[in-house]
Amino acid sequence: MIGVRKLDAWKQDQNEVRKRIREGTYTGPTTGLLNGYTQANLVVLPQSLAYDFLLFCQRNPKPCPLLEVVDAGSAEPMITAPGKDLRTDLPKYIIYRNGVKEQEVTDVTDYWRDDLVSFLLGCSFTFESYMLEMGVPVRQIEEGVNVPMYVTNRECHKAGVFEGNMVVSMRPIPEEKITMAVQITSRFPAVHGAPVHIGSPEKIGIIDLRRPDFGNAVTVKPGEIPVFWACGVTPQAAIMKQKPEFVITHSPGHMFITDKTDMEFFQL
Amino acid sequence: MIGVRKLDAWKQDQNEVRKRIREGTYTGPTTGLLNGYTQANLVVLPQSLAYDFLLFCQRNPKPCPLLEVVDAGSAEPMITAPGKDLRTDLPKYIIYRNGVKEQEVTDVTDYWRDDLVSFLLGCSFTFESYMLEMGVPVRQIEEGVNVPMYVTNRECHKAGVFEGNMVVSMRPIPEEKITMAVQITSRFPAVHGAPVHIGSPEKIGIIDLRRPDFGNAVTVKPGEIPVFWACGVTPQAAIMKQKPEFVITHSPGHMFITDKTDMEFFQL
Repeated sequence: MIGVRKLDAWKQDQNEVRKRIREGTYTGPTTGLLNGYTQANLVVLPQSLAYDFLLFCQRNPKPCPLLEVVDAGSAEPMITAPGKDLRTDLPKYIIYRNGVKEQEVTDVTDYWRDDLVSFLLGCSFTFESYMLEMGVPVRQIEEGVNVPMYVTNRECHKAGVFEGNMVVSMRPIPEEKITMAVQITSRFPAVHGAPVHIGSPEKIGIIDLRRPDFGNAVTVKPGEIPVFWACGVTPQAAIMKQKPEFVITHSPGHMFITDKTDMEFFQL
Repeated sequence: MIGVRKLDAWKQDQNEVRKRIREGTYTGPTTGLLNGYTQANLVVLPQSLAYDFLLFCQRNPKPCPLLEVVDAGSAEPMITAPGKDLRTDLPKYIIYRNGVKEQEVTDVTDYWRDDLVSFLLGCSFTFESYMLEMGVPVRQIEEGVNVPMYVTNRECHKAGVFEGNMVVSMRPIPEEKITMAVQITSRFPAVHGAPVHIGSPEKIGIIDLRRPDFGNAVTVKPGEIPVFWACGVTPQAAIMKQKPEFVITHSPGHMFITDKTDMEFFQL
């Protein structure tokens, strides 16, 4: 046991985690790293698309909760992680050209351009850690898979070139824990906030829970009700639909770890 | 009494209020009109400044709570008031050129341009009505003056060409009501939210409460503590500092009345 704890101790060490990611000696997912620090989705777009995307996020804050928008050309998030560098400080990135995935890389310094605008968006890791602490089960963590995600029949508010339907993530919650799941997530509007739907999947256009559009199906046990939250794949899908000339995102699960703690996004 | 009620009945009548404002037969302040409907500040800017201003609002949500950003060239707020026209549906506007007030008008149709972007921002009228309902005094309403506003020593996050210090409004609150004042306003993040400071004015750079930078001084009674909220004059001051070629705003107190109710902005 002591051996295991020692082996994993670096995972909660600020300097060590950030150094290994920056140097590229750690390129794995960020779950379990620097617990309590807020992790963020990264979307990097050419400036010509930045206004439309910022407006899309403003109009659709539940699926697109902006934590920070970095100045054009800069890779330093002055508000959520001053001194950090978005070109090196994520373990893995995806480069897209004209809507097609070109490659996965662990450093995007060579791809950087002066006209790039970086958007950091909140991620449900933040509220999931509180759900677990309060005894609300998070099924995809129990089953060791990706959260199941579904394209709904709810249209987002269009903004310039960006449009699309809302994508939701689903977590089955025991009936007696639904109140608490709503209460906890309501307190985190910066990371998708309260559920957008509770109950019948067909009411939001989901035909079969066992066939998610993204991620993996999870078990819904007797006495549990499917609960749906707005999902950060929504803005990604809206972007990809538009096939922009150039986009960088984090690789799924390989997030940016900000300097902010989850409690700083707790809405009192 | 019946006569008075009859005389004022139009003030709560949707069709009548909106018709009189649109036709220009009512050009007065909007306080007391269509109670329960959310009123908004209007800022109209050329598209060339829209990205920087949107980013300024995103980075400074407490003084700049965006209710809606309208598509460039359009005067119809599709989200908060579909079918309404921002060029005619406010009782009074101010036109600025190069940072100088040019004139006050009751209709801006003749000034409209295809490159104009309209921003609607939340206003503290929304939380004040709840404070009154819950027995928290709102001094400037009791004294029939404008809320006192002060420029603080707190810098906003800069965004492109826009920068400036936060402006706050002050309401003196009896000590035993401060908890409730914080609780009520915390539930309205879309209209400035919770106080940014409670107590000593000098801690936020205010030298003399009796000399506000905008609005009117109000009485602070024994047993009351000054409570400060982020104020919508902040973005206006940031804009005026920049002296843009062309700006339209609502005339102070002559707001846009949306179709949304205050309860729709209550953050559960």
